[in-house]
Amino acid sequence: MSNCSFCDILAGKLDASIAHQDEVCAALLDIQPINSGHTLVIPNRHAAHLADLDQHTAAHVFHVAQQVAAALRRSRLKCEGVNLLLADGEAAGQEVFHAHLHVVPRFKGDGFSFKFPSRYAIKPDRQDLDEVAEQIRNVF
Amino acid sequence: MSNCSFCDILAGKLDASIAHQDEVCAALLDIQPINSGHTLVIPNRHAAHLADLDQHTAAHVFHVAQQVAAALRRSRLKCEGVNLLLADGEAAGQEVFHAHLHVVPRFKGDGFSFKFPSRYAIKPDRQDLDEVAEQIRNVF
Repeated sequence: MSNCSFCDILAGKLDASIAHQDEVCAALLDIQPINSGHTLVIPNRHAAHLADLDQHTAAHVFHVAQQVAAALRRSRLKCEGVNLLLADGEAAGQEVFHAHLHVVPRFKGDGFSFKFPSRYAIKPDRQDLDEVAEQIRNVF
Repeated sequence: MSNCSFCDILAGKLDASIAHQDEVCAALLDIQPINSGHTLVIPNRHAAHLADLDQHTAAHVFHVAQQVAAALRRSRLKCEGVNLLLADGEAAGQEVFHAHLHVVPRFKGDGFSFKFPSRYAIKPDRQDLDEVAEQIRNVF
């Protein structure tokens, strides 16, 4: 066993329910789903963080997430919409340090929602936003 | 003016704070940020839903989101982690029907979190997960 549960799944050492697998990535069912059908798309090659995914792998992970989303909508599972979610880093809620893109089927009244910071109601003015955009552009 | 505010921004008819722009997509500051630096990556060509993004465009949108995430981490903005979020369909919280991938800088104690359904605590057994995986595989 390695110290990465997703690598152990990919090596066949841990059980998982696999919705799709190809030469670059796999899509497996989350063991604690937000809604039935909640799937994780993971690269076959270990990569802890978003920045560790090379461009080809990242593109393929996103493409498979699109395909899973489409399959969820076509399936008999309850799916009126889809959220894609990725948590990069502990502060963002990442728990398994093998990058994974959540594909979450959604339906009205499913009880899943976002809780926003109290300052969220206060919209910044255009000058503030322009300054933030400049800060990002300067280090892009 | 069109009936799409993002298309109006891209056409220069509405103000926006642009962090990046290239021949395929743009990254603009969310006017109601979860945290300062919250950016939306959008395709230049109108596409309402995730399924409407062709593979090249989707790959590029995801790549630019990776670059924005890296820039946020390098910037002076508060960023200890990053969430990528996409809402596809009204049931998933989509409000602007021009596909957009949120890049949200996160830090400990920022007050943003997920609210889970009450059934979330109950983990399905392996047989249930295998059946769901099969349903997805069958229509992949």
